Amino acid sequence: MSDDATTEGHPGVGRVEAFSDGVIAIIITIMVLELKAPEEAGVEHLWRLWPTFVAYALSFAYVGIYWVNHHRLFGHARQVTNGLVWFNLVLLFALSLIPFSTAYLGTQHFSRDATLVYLASMLFPGLAYVPLQKVITATGSQSSVAQTYHRQTTRKGIVAVAIYLLGMPLSFVSPWLGIGCALLVAFLWFLPKSPIDGMFGD
Amino acid sequence: MSDDATTEGHPGVGRVEAFSDGVIAIIITIMVLELKAPEEAGVEHLWRLWPTFVAYALSFAYVGIYWVNHHRLFGHARQVTNGLVWFNLVLLFALSLIPFSTAYLGTQHFSRDATLVYLASMLFPGLAYVPLQKVITATGSQSSVAQTYHRQTTRKGIVAVAIYLLGMPLSFVSPWLGIGCALLVAFLWFLPKSPIDGMFGD
Amino acid sequence: MSDDATTEGHPGVGRVEAFSDGVIAIIITIMVLELKAPEEAGVEHLWRLWPTFVAYALSFAYVGIYWVNHHRLFGHARQVTNGLVWFNLVLLFALSLIPFSTAYLGTQHFSRDATLVYLASMLFPGLAYVPLQKVITATGSQSSVAQTYHRQTTRKGIVAVAIYLLGMPLSFVSPWLGIGCALLVAFLWFLPKSPIDGMFGD
Amino acid sequence: MSDDATTEGHPGVGRVEAFSDGVIAIIITIMVLELKAPEEAGVEHLWRLWPTFVAYALSFAYVGIYWVNHHRLFGHARQVTNGLVWFNLVLLFALSLIPFSTAYLGTQHFSRDATLVYLASMLFPGLAYVPLQKVITATGSQSSVAQTYHRQTTRKGIVAVAIYLLGMPLSFVSPWLGIGCALLVAFLWFLPKSPIDGMFGD
Repeated sequence: MSDDATTEGHPGVGRVEAFSDGVIAIIITIMVLELKAPEEAGVEHLWRLWPTFVAYALSFAYVGIYWVNHHRLFGHARQVTNGLVWFNLVLLFALSLIPFSTAYLGTQHFSRDATLVYLASMLFPGLAYVPLQKVITATGSQSSVAQTYHRQTTRKGIVAVAIYLLGMPLSFVSPWLGIGCALLVAFLWFLPKSPIDGMFGD
Repeated sequence: MSDDATTEGHPGVGRVEAFSDGVIAIIITIMVLELKAPEEAGVEHLWRLWPTFVAYALSFAYVGIYWVNHHRLFGHARQVTNGLVWFNLVLLFALSLIPFSTAYLGTQHFSRDATLVYLASMLFPGLAYVPLQKVITATGSQSSVAQTYHRQTTRKGIVAVAIYLLGMPLSFVSPWLGIGCALLVAFLWFLPKSPIDGMFGD
Repeated sequence: MSDDATTEGHPGVGRVEAFSDGVIAIIITIMVLELKAPEEAGVEHLWRLWPTFVAYALSFAYVGIYWVNHHRLFGHARQVTNGLVWFNLVLLFALSLIPFSTAYLGTQHFSRDATLVYLASMLFPGLAYVPLQKVITATGSQSSVAQTYHRQTTRKGIVAVAIYLLGMPLSFVSPWLGIGCALLVAFLWFLPKSPIDGMFGD
Repeated sequence: MSDDATTEGHPGVGRVEAFSDGVIAIIITIMVLELKAPEEAGVEHLWRLWPTFVAYALSFAYVGIYWVNHHRLFGHARQVTNGLVWFNLVLLFALSLIPFSTAYLGTQHFSRDATLVYLASMLFPGLAYVPLQKVITATGSQSSVAQTYHRQTTRKGIVAVAIYLLGMPLSFVSPWLGIGCALLVAFLWFLPKSPIDGMFGD
């Protein structure tokens, strides 16, 4: 839309965000299609849906957290580079697998295998976030606010990946320990002033 | 997008609205997937879909009303706080369960249990709206227009929750009384000049 | 977003358009979910999908035409009134039934009954368009361009409704005559300089 | 939104892009619904999903590339003409068939027939891109950046179509040669500095 030769024909930051928003909005919403209304009457058929429901609620929180973080991150972007576009697509691809792993967790009633698949599907976007943040940091704002933000986020990201990796062997003890690890990460990110930040004094 | 240090890296109000719009647009539209085209020829197989159709129309109106109110509310927001982001996600989660309860109402042919589940799924967003409105009122515009708006909306919200709660015991008498309560709320909100406002003279 | 007391808390025209775009984008896209990939190998199982494919292509064109017209119409809107919001929701509801009637047309292999249902589902948005255009004309731009536009669109709308109504009895002779009527309307709208406009010399 | 008589009532470039973004976001995301979580426990049931998973990943990359190119192309558009609107709808229609061909590739385990259908579904958007680019070139920016862009894109498009056409007879030798052709095109487009550009020295 700009006549500036250096950016002509390149989608703006806002456009990449809008597309990502659309994809994330669809991911977060189509998961509810797995909550299939039972054909049979009776409350007992509703109760049987609880694993699917709990998995849905957990994944909704998880994808919601990614949406928030994605926007915070893009708030620091100043330029759309090829790297940004492609690493962003990789992140969206990673997130798009969550409806699958969520459905699997629900249909398998939080079995060990399903918990491992679920933790892996949480790990994938966590890892895909790293190069995306790198390219945005490299070309983005270098203000002290931005630097603190990137330091905190990198730290939170490492802690999250570590907890997911820890959850995998713990799932062999009990799947609920694995699910607990997923919940713990959601909790750490959810807090406005994360205890992880507090530990490092910024 | 702004270089202002205090807002750098925070999604703007417009962005939260656009994401919410996307989620609500998907919620309101995927409900139609429950209206499954019969494989068999014959008008009698079409007629059998009427409960699903009526449930769809009712929920479409209901989600449509939420979309209108969500935007009116966000029109008063001046700042994106952590509370706003998370309470908004809770509201979206509550709304995302409506396709499920709508499908249940349709497949169960407006049975008592399904009507109770449906009323509960209408109650949940009604309750989730309260803290969201609180955080927006706290940080938003304090003009007299905004104050009148918040007073009217709070009142309408309380009346809606009360009618849903009333509809639950009434569903034990007849599910249609419960459905009637859901319709009554849609009607009260639909009117540009609500009778609830009129009763209080503003 | 504006501090102007008269519009505070009312969604802007752009917002209503964005939401409508979202809903229409979902409607136009989820129809492809009816094109189910056959499990069995062999080209003959692909050929059997032709009625579903043809119905999908026709409905894609139809919803696409509505999207174009919806935007042209909203390009004349100057103000978001209650009437605009609700009549727009009625139009979106009418359009949202098209995936159903399209699926029915496909599964019933263009039977007479399915063609009647399909024509009815094309008639509904055509009728829902009338009050929406009225409220936008009433509050919108009164330039001569706008007046010519509204005159032409009203005329095209009447012709379309008339052709759909004509298609219904013709479907009793042959469903293909009914489908032909639907195609004819798509063709009349598709043309940049519609023959309907030409007949009236503006 | 503009009072300028020449554009009044015509959707702006941004609006056409936003609608296209919505449709492409839905296309890229609903493909994951084909990845159905197995009901049975056991890792072997997960492994059986690999063809569906590989087909999904390939199509995700493909549609993602189209999104990037679509935006680059629209970055050169200066005016919304009838041709732009309708050829854009044809392109979106072509892209909307990819979830179908992807599902078919997955359920048929990369059989020869499914590979041919898949290559055809990649060829269709490639061909639909040609007239769209033509109308945008005709009315758009004529800067040297735009001209280089259009020359490069036209060349890449021709190479892509040629490779897809080559892949079809090769699929009779082995479907994997056909899939390799699809991968090759994705690779050529993915590179920021395409070898195709390098061969022609601009």
